[in-house]
Amino acid sequence: MISKASYGLTDDAAIVLENDTIAWAGKRTDIPSYVSKAQPVDMGGRLVTPALIDCHTHIVHGGNRASEFEMRLEGASYEEIARSGGGIMSTVAATRATSEENLLSAALVRVDALIAEGVGTVEVKSGYGLDMDTELKMLRVARAIGNNRPIRVTTTFLGAHAPPKGADADSYIDDICLPTLEAAHAEGLIDAVDGFCEGVAFSTAQIARVFEKAQALGVPVKIHSEQLSHLGGTELAARYNALSADHLEYANESDVQALAGAGSVAVLLPGAYYTLKETQQPPISALRKHGVPMAIATDWNPGTSPLGSPLLAMNMACTLFGLTPTEALIGTTRNAAQALGLDDCGTIAPGKRADLAVWNVTHPSELSYGIGINPLHKRIFGGRL
Amino acid sequence: MISKASYGLTDDAAIVLENDTIAWAGKRTDIPSYVSKAQPVDMGGRLVTPALIDCHTHIVHGGNRASEFEMRLEGASYEEIARSGGGIMSTVAATRATSEENLLSAALVRVDALIAEGVGTVEVKSGYGLDMDTELKMLRVARAIGNNRPIRVTTTFLGAHAPPKGADADSYIDDICLPTLEAAHAEGLIDAVDGFCEGVAFSTAQIARVFEKAQALGVPVKIHSEQLSHLGGTELAARYNALSADHLEYANESDVQALAGAGSVAVLLPGAYYTLKETQQPPISALRKHGVPMAIATDWNPGTSPLGSPLLAMNMACTLFGLTPTEALIGTTRNAAQALGLDDCGTIAPGKRADLAVWNVTHPSELSYGIGINPLHKRIFGGRL
Ligand SMILES: [Zn+2]
Ligand SMILES: [Zn+2]
Repeated sequence: MISKASYGLTDDAAIVLENDTIAWAGKRTDIPSYVSKAQPVDMGGRLVTPALIDCHTHIVHGGNRASEFEMRLEGASYEEIARSGGGIMSTVAATRATSEENLLSAALVRVDALIAEGVGTVEVKSGYGLDMDTELKMLRVARAIGNNRPIRVTTTFLGAHAPPKGADADSYIDDICLPTLEAAHAEGLIDAVDGFCEGVAFSTAQIARVFEKAQALGVPVKIHSEQLSHLGGTELAARYNALSADHLEYANESDVQALAGAGSVAVLLPGAYYTLKETQQPPISALRKHGVPMAIATDWNPGTSPLGSPLLAMNMACTLFGLTPTEALIGTTRNAAQALGLDDCGTIAPGKRADLAVWNVTHPSELSYGIGINPLHKRIFGGRL
Repeated sequence: MISKASYGLTDDAAIVLENDTIAWAGKRTDIPSYVSKAQPVDMGGRLVTPALIDCHTHIVHGGNRASEFEMRLEGASYEEIARSGGGIMSTVAATRATSEENLLSAALVRVDALIAEGVGTVEVKSGYGLDMDTELKMLRVARAIGNNRPIRVTTTFLGAHAPPKGADADSYIDDICLPTLEAAHAEGLIDAVDGFCEGVAFSTAQIARVFEKAQALGVPVKIHSEQLSHLGGTELAARYNALSADHLEYANESDVQALAGAGSVAVLLPGAYYTLKETQQPPISALRKHGVPMAIATDWNPGTSPLGSPLLAMNMACTLFGLTPTEALIGTTRNAAQALGLDDCGTIAPGKRADLAVWNVTHPSELSYGIGINPLHKRIFGGRL
């Protein structure tokens, strides 16, 4: 049974690494003579892919929301949950109350799970502080992950995640979010700026103020948009040449055209779709038609997507959104790199980082086919096993 | 935030093991004096549950169906897939063609994943042979799992899984299935007998002939019923006092009453529901109303449920079927034991097997809340870490 898929696979391949970089890749029989003295490591005919890239996570946070999950399933209303301290504000309270050290150790448990699935690069957002101290604390913890584990971390400032309890959204943006963005940038803590454009969060006008500041600082932007309703965040982000627009369940063809025009990536987050029992699918056909690159990420967060597995996100993207396994794998490698503005990873080619995943499978479609199954054999990060 | 859930948890608990058995369980401060000399092992305040039980799997099989998964997502019709050798018959062909040794090594990879999630008992079905030699081969492999790994295996004869290609279903039952059942029973290879009652498989009359033979041999029965349509398999199974009826998406209240009357367990298999993009949910309210115990299993199989994670099955049971985390945990412990006719596992009580799971969580709801996350700290099997 032969599928039409094309992964650009090379049979009987070899990859030559020089320190942390791929020096050469191709047919084993074509290995250039200058590497003849190197010690070959036999991967036993296994599939080798770029290390996976999880380009949208919230893995730095205090506490969890299992009790809220349980209360909801026991029939509690959203009001009852809110009254008992649930929702995003419970994570904000827990994150504020948790020390930098404890935030880091909790995040490292999550990162270890990602590494165990072959992830080489992970994006981490702030956004559960909503005050300057805690936002900076989250970003320092995100940076510290990369010093404590063999993984590359890119950090995103998401001060515009939700207005703090009782706060006026406009005043929050002006008085807290923007000064915090400046401070975080001055400390070298951010690689990108994100915002949640939604009725329960911020308007396009409010997000635009954040994007103006990001632009002034020379930091690229991205957005959580059209997840629960159509508010126009995607077109806004495209006007700022966003790296990516994420979620997109309620995006329409005009949004997709805007992304295509801006060269932005569409980041699909099926874990949140699944958890929220959403039925409106992102506009996959339009994204394909207009050639918008699709990435897939876990959106690992304690509320709407406590999903710790990029492979499961790939399966969900196929099963719930109808992506092909080829699209799913490109979505967690090449397109995920593009969503992070990285051009040195996500593919196997000379000059790229030697971040690779070696799998106990015979065909790449198996990576998306399995559900809650991890066939990783070995991960290579920066040239090291 | 306090949920209404009751798991029968004991704080500051101790469990006394004697060889492979639980001798005592209760408050640490109440430990009986006769165990004062024993070496305590501190679990660091972690949650301890019974080891999980996966009561419905097809983990012995040849090949996989990733190509079929891929072809379907690339738009191939069921006819095209069937023409290119897809569907259950491709697994039958692969299983027939795979040696006992290779079937075992592939099954052990799957079993190791279950063990890594705290599983202590797994049920394994035949049903991809559909001829005497291969059905017996599958059952021997299933038995061999228990000799090669620290896990208990219960085996189920599923000769009535599907009529072989081109075969008349009635003749298959009489000429192959029933003689194979007799042979498997004579060899001591089966703990239960199962059948797939569905338009694409066997009628109630055909399954009844298999159940008659099982009854004559003194082997308990179970059934795959009302998964894709309502055919009456559930009521049939109840008439034979089935251990369980499994799937049940299209079961109605009268089926549920029959299960209640027979004392059968309803085994829910959300992995197949998810993979098939089914929208008809099993009759959860009716099962609750009539007090039918609900179990949850992976249904790990290469076609409709390549799901290798009982914890993810628990999350899916909550998210897709609306079970509470309490019901999900009972569904993979106490009720799963009942579905297998076992009374020596699935709870923590004196006299039960010392099969335990120790988790890095603070509350049992976290086991169902996480998606693709494995917080197992340690598994204890037969009293051994
Ligand atoms: Zn997010
Ligand atoms: Zn089954």
